[in-house]
Amino acid sequence: MLIVMKPDASDHEIQRVIQIIESVGLKAHLMPGSNRMAIGITGNPGPVDPSPFADLPGVSECVRVTKPYKLVSRELRPERTVIRLGEAQIGGDEFAIIAGVCAVESREQTLMTAAAVAEMGCRFFRGGAFKPRTSPYAFQGLGEEGLKILSEVREQYGLKIVTEATDEPALDLVERYADVIQIGTRNMQNFSLLRRAGQARKPVLLKRGMASTIEEFLLAAEYIMSEGNYQVILCERGVRTFANHTRFTLDLSLVPAIQGISHLPIIVDPSHSTGKREKVIPLARAGAAVGADGLLVDVHPYPERALCDGPQALVFDMFRDMVQQVRAIAEIVKIHMEEGITK
Amino acid sequence: MLIVMKPDASDHEIQRVIQIIESVGLKAHLMPGSNRMAIGITGNPGPVDPSPFADLPGVSECVRVTKPYKLVSRELRPERTVIRLGEAQIGGDEFAIIAGVCAVESREQTLMTAAAVAEMGCRFFRGGAFKPRTSPYAFQGLGEEGLKILSEVREQYGLKIVTEATDEPALDLVERYADVIQIGTRNMQNFSLLRRAGQARKPVLLKRGMASTIEEFLLAAEYIMSEGNYQVILCERGVRTFANHTRFTLDLSLVPAIQGISHLPIIVDPSHSTGKREKVIPLARAGAAVGADGLLVDVHPYPERALCDGPQALVFDMFRDMVQQVRAIAEIVKIHMEEGITK
Amino acid sequence: MLIVMKPDASDHEIQRVIQIIESVGLKAHLMPGSNRMAIGITGNPGPVDPSPFADLPGVSECVRVTKPYKLVSRELRPERTVIRLGEAQIGGDEFAIIAGVCAVESREQTLMTAAAVAEMGCRFFRGGAFKPRTSPYAFQGLGEEGLKILSEVREQYGLKIVTEATDEPALDLVERYADVIQIGTRNMQNFSLLRRAGQARKPVLLKRGMASTIEEFLLAAEYIMSEGNYQVILCERGVRTFANHTRFTLDLSLVPAIQGISHLPIIVDPSHSTGKREKVIPLARAGAAVGADGLLVDVHPYPERALCDGPQALVFDMFRDMVQQVRAIAEIVKIHMEEGITK
Amino acid sequence: MLIVMKPDASDHEIQRVIQIIESVGLKAHLMPGSNRMAIGITGNPGPVDPSPFADLPGVSECVRVTKPYKLVSRELRPERTVIRLGEAQIGGDEFAIIAGVCAVESREQTLMTAAAVAEMGCRFFRGGAFKPRTSPYAFQGLGEEGLKILSEVREQYGLKIVTEATDEPALDLVERYADVIQIGTRNMQNFSLLRRAGQARKPVLLKRGMASTIEEFLLAAEYIMSEGNYQVILCERGVRTFANHTRFTLDLSLVPAIQGISHLPIIVDPSHSTGKREKVIPLARAGAAVGADGLLVDVHPYPERALCDGPQALVFDMFRDMVQQVRAIAEIVKIHMEEGITK
Repeated sequence: MLIVMKPDASDHEIQRVIQIIESVGLKAHLMPGSNRMAIGITGNPGPVDPSPFADLPGVSECVRVTKPYKLVSRELRPERTVIRLGEAQIGGDEFAIIAGVCAVESREQTLMTAAAVAEMGCRFFRGGAFKPRTSPYAFQGLGEEGLKILSEVREQYGLKIVTEATDEPALDLVERYADVIQIGTRNMQNFSLLRRAGQARKPVLLKRGMASTIEEFLLAAEYIMSEGNYQVILCERGVRTFANHTRFTLDLSLVPAIQGISHLPIIVDPSHSTGKREKVIPLARAGAAVGADGLLVDVHPYPERALCDGPQALVFDMFRDMVQQVRAIAEIVKIHMEEGITK
Repeated sequence: MLIVMKPDASDHEIQRVIQIIESVGLKAHLMPGSNRMAIGITGNPGPVDPSPFADLPGVSECVRVTKPYKLVSRELRPERTVIRLGEAQIGGDEFAIIAGVCAVESREQTLMTAAAVAEMGCRFFRGGAFKPRTSPYAFQGLGEEGLKILSEVREQYGLKIVTEATDEPALDLVERYADVIQIGTRNMQNFSLLRRAGQARKPVLLKRGMASTIEEFLLAAEYIMSEGNYQVILCERGVRTFANHTRFTLDLSLVPAIQGISHLPIIVDPSHSTGKREKVIPLARAGAAVGADGLLVDVHPYPERALCDGPQALVFDMFRDMVQQVRAIAEIVKIHMEEGITK
Repeated sequence: MLIVMKPDASDHEIQRVIQIIESVGLKAHLMPGSNRMAIGITGNPGPVDPSPFADLPGVSECVRVTKPYKLVSRELRPERTVIRLGEAQIGGDEFAIIAGVCAVESREQTLMTAAAVAEMGCRFFRGGAFKPRTSPYAFQGLGEEGLKILSEVREQYGLKIVTEATDEPALDLVERYADVIQIGTRNMQNFSLLRRAGQARKPVLLKRGMASTIEEFLLAAEYIMSEGNYQVILCERGVRTFANHTRFTLDLSLVPAIQGISHLPIIVDPSHSTGKREKVIPLARAGAAVGADGLLVDVHPYPERALCDGPQALVFDMFRDMVQQVRAIAEIVKIHMEEGITK
Repeated sequence: MLIVMKPDASDHEIQRVIQIIESVGLKAHLMPGSNRMAIGITGNPGPVDPSPFADLPGVSECVRVTKPYKLVSRELRPERTVIRLGEAQIGGDEFAIIAGVCAVESREQTLMTAAAVAEMGCRFFRGGAFKPRTSPYAFQGLGEEGLKILSEVREQYGLKIVTEATDEPALDLVERYADVIQIGTRNMQNFSLLRRAGQARKPVLLKRGMASTIEEFLLAAEYIMSEGNYQVILCERGVRTFANHTRFTLDLSLVPAIQGISHLPIIVDPSHSTGKREKVIPLARAGAAVGADGLLVDVHPYPERALCDGPQALVFDMFRDMVQQVRAIAEIVKIHMEEGITK
């Protein structure tokens, strides 16, 4: 259930609602809007009885939430969520480009790439220090050593750091060193890790599972939010199908589908979905055009020497070219969305 | 095998090569390029011996084709195919918008829609007179009556007509009335129909089968071309996956994948893939951004009254908005492709 | 709608119902049951008004059919359909094994295989004279020449002939020479071909499309039945998925799913789904165990020399072994089904 | 690399090989066979140089392993692995039936079900104390309380307990209370959990990820084995496809595919794949017929009251009937496999 407060409800009135919710063993989630506060209730096994709330001072209305997902939904929060990190933002006016190396392999490779990313005016740097690898014998990332290199990127270039946490000990470290905690596709239903991310104080970038329905994806975000962390960025990265001309099939229709249901920002990863460099720029353009809030893209100074996913990394010239193209397209989309004829 | 002629080869020299090919029971396909003729050979069970050709006057070189598809491939024809119908074209400089009704239901509904399509400067009109329907009890189209209404559209608005042929008798009629013969997704491997389309004198728009690999799709086009009709337009319309937020999952990565292998133009259908109106414009933008040569899109004056696929048809205002957006995006893509940094 | 006649309804009463149905432009389908006749009505755009029928002499009740498929459903015909061809049957007490060559390549190869099939007491022989091939350059079958070889198999070994018709001219020939007309997976939604098969006087074996839902599959059968041919055998042959250890993923759960909805017999093809010989016997056993009415299986005297799908064909020793195993398993299933504890 | 020792190699000779392996920072895995010991080497980034080993006393040969998976493969261990727990076994002569409740909901429900399972002579009991649930608001299991109830089942009925560990703290508890540690489909690529399971002293039942290829599945098992736990049981439980008549599509062809590559036992779960009770028995029969080593099946005294997955649970009568059927079929398969004509 969602309790919508009147625009002029006092803090005291809001606190009283929260107390009543908690007194019956349920959980209250504050959902501030531009001109009124709303309070989501979770933890209830069945429908919540609105009667103890309906006549409280400051309460405007009690709304039943009908979907299995609650906190992620536009029913609970009609305004779109914008993730802000200093001047950088995801879900706001600026199209967010999160670029960098698939895996942090060395200080030199990482800083070279960061320079190219910063030079293009991008605000986010990605780089993996903990790599979830299909084989136990493959390179598993530099760990904390890699996180330190990423911190250097932030200090030197002012870029916000996005990096993956593959398990709870890794998340403890990532929370300390990074700006955004990434949860990968293979962990989208690692519910303990989702709960732990929900207790973190930093935004979480959640990648869609490779066989996940839209409902499962939103419920994974709901796991994070139900623990009190409302800073979630969704990421479409391709799903598994019979098609064999790419590693995964990028499902761009998810972007408008999510936007119709949820207030959370959603970005697109054209690198891991295609697995092949020459398809990355076309799909990055398509991601901007479909209306996503940003991109997650792999760049590498020498892709042929990459320890992980080299064939999909853009070289610097291609990256610069991509940035120009996607920004021009994102601008067109923004103008048309603001004109409001279409979403 | 491909026999590449010298730029100054005479007609007589070309004819001689053809005669030799046919004299051993094989088939010769003329593949004119901008400055030289090439001759493809099909019908050979194994590799063709180049020795009878190598030293003929006018022959520049003999190239083995290594892929299962031949005539569709850039190995045989490095230049991109442009389909020209008067001033209209697909695969050329102008982004092609093929818009219209899913099914021709009445003269009034069709002409009203055609007026809206023509008003936006589009050059192609789509409309189904023969509808392949999952149920034997569903509306199957107006047949020849529908084709006559489409002819009226051409006369009145100068639009080129694209319409589906569901079987060979239908193809006989469509070839007579229409400008472009459409083969639908369920017939992509109806090999007799493909052969018949290959004998037609009009371009063929071939939709990808809903579970078709890229190789199967190209080989279906090869069936048409192997009969001598080289005017084939490919169309991505979504594939079947587990994802249930759209009817089919639009696989935009197919566009750059095809462009890397084949010289044929490829367009995108955002209407049938999504099945839902509010997702059509975002995916139409994405189709333009990914680098497709055009779009196939459903429009309807009163979608709520449509006999077929109403929920996916754009109303006129949405259609006008879509055209403006996709043209702006296609322009950006074109500029960047011409600069040649990326394909 | 379904009109159920009283057990003692006279021919005259049945004829009168049919006349009334046809007088309003609808189609009547006689569905004889073990102790009463039922008459299905199709061709109605919406619900049929039962009032003209309800009080006619001989009419027991008028039942509305709520599913999109009608004639295929157990609502219209609660008793299971048994296809009978002389002593051979599909859907009856005996587990039907339809074995033979993928493609008829020569008289010798075909007759050798037929001898092995007959020797094991099987009653059906399969062999392709018209082959739907992905590439226009692949072997397309021997055509009528192949059908004549198959006729020889029938004469010499008493086996019933099952062979594919890839288009309408092929169906004309197949209807003349064969006992059962096969419609392949790529033609499951070739609606003209389905209608033509519905006008044939011979049973039709309909293979599931490789991306077909259960509803689409049943509606394809409905196309055949709506033309008056009620002798339809369904065949599960694998669907397209991401899994790459077999060519297609055999979906055995379709068998009980179909049996819950439809009265039509359903068999399983373990050869085309796996594409690999060593998986054919295990999946043939599984097909028998899941409760299918029979199998369609490829055998070849020299698979390494086969012109089509050699790697999946069983050699004779494997075939003999398979027959023994599946018969033993089918026997167990039959006993338990008869005991009626489970379906 | 695999070092195969001579049949008469002494313990001392074996220890010396291990010392040399470990002295260069690699890991040695003892793989005992029926008449000789083999030693697998992992941890090497590239090929291992065989020269230090080839001439050591007791060494028969050094074999390069060419697949990405090593310890799971028949290259390293040609004999099939049998998991033994007292008299119970999986992968041995007896077809293993692991039956029980999806979730442990109460002592009464669990013990009632255990009585029915024990009564049929089954040796394994399944029951979830930690439930991975798509929604954060769904019943998540009784936790340690549930494990205590399961211990009571073991004491009272002598059944071996199989139960899922959803994260590392849960695994600590499950290892203490249970006999077999289950890793669920959503955790198949939770690599930290796999490594932790690899350090456990109890067998691990690993379920296939719902979009996992055979290679990814085997590499997940390799993660467990690379930590020294060689007691792994694989389980096919259905994959995600477009087909909507079952929750997942049970891919029985995986069973012979795995058996061709790996020595590990593989069982089938017909309950979670179908999600519907009436399809469970047919698919359980099919699982036995395809040659699996056992089944994992849900049973419930009152499925209509189940807190989790009630619609797929068998009632006791159906369960008893299923056991009889699958045992009869497994017997046939065993006889034919022993005759050795086919695998």
